[in-house]
Amino acid sequence: MIRVPTDVIFRSAAETDLPAIVALLADDVIGAGREDVSSAAYLTAFREVTADPRNQLVVADAGGEVAGTLQLTYIPGISRMGAERAQIEGVRVAAAHRSRGLGREMINWAIEQAKARGCGLVQLTSDKRRSDAIRFYESLGFESTHEGMKLRL
Amino acid sequence: MIRVPTDVIFRSAAETDLPAIVALLADDVIGAGREDVSSAAYLTAFREVTADPRNQLVVADAGGEVAGTLQLTYIPGISRMGAERAQIEGVRVAAAHRSRGLGREMINWAIEQAKARGCGLVQLTSDKRRSDAIRFYESLGFESTHEGMKLRL
Repeated sequence: MIRVPTDVIFRSAAETDLPAIVALLADDVIGAGREDVSSAAYLTAFREVTADPRNQLVVADAGGEVAGTLQLTYIPGISRMGAERAQIEGVRVAAAHRSRGLGREMINWAIEQAKARGCGLVQLTSDKRRSDAIRFYESLGFESTHEGMKLRL
Repeated sequence: MIRVPTDVIFRSAAETDLPAIVALLADDVIGAGREDVSSAAYLTAFREVTADPRNQLVVADAGGEVAGTLQLTYIPGISRMGAERAQIEGVRVAAAHRSRGLGREMINWAIEQAKARGCGLVQLTSDKRRSDAIRFYESLGFESTHEGMKLRL
């Protein structure tokens, strides 16, 4: 656990955080149409994520309130000299906590986790409509070298 | 195992396939500078990949020869109604087996695996310099909706 200047603690999500996490995912211009906060599917998914040693669902806890969330996945692989890569998904910051540097703290924290684990690479994809997010990640050192391609099933 | 028209079998990689897989990764304009086929790190990575139930290293086996490879990672997550996503990494087809539709068979096979598992999404990133690869994935239904952002550690 790291205490950031804004007095926010980063920790693994508990099951009691799940409604707040789902609400964050749904409170988003792009994500809203993809979520139904009443679904029981989230609990099943939560348990799968938290039971997996290569996945960590993280919350930024501001005095007991979920101020942000992200998911880290550690992917082993043969390429790049057998380097493990850390992947970041589902990054959200609560509206009341935006524009205070919390997103930057969250991503920097995730990068530090990946470094401490010995990962060779951190990767993420960001919807091209989120131009602010893309600039934000670039300001943290990420390079937009790849096309992020998706196929919905 | 699925037998494709070209008489190629898709199966999980065995440790004896590893030198051929590494050679495929190194025999690539972009990948060449990132690999050292003499490294012992690949064996450690191979064992991590194959020990993980959410990762599958696949080879296209043409009469005992490794004609192609890809890695599948099944990532659980909260977003998109708790949908699991399938991620494809490290796609390579051996020079002698290119332009015969094997790459298409491999990706379609991976998509079918993801469907059978109930995944909501298949995703991959492709280096923007690989314009042929990007067109190829688009022809299979993938959409370049996201920036694929990488940070080397």
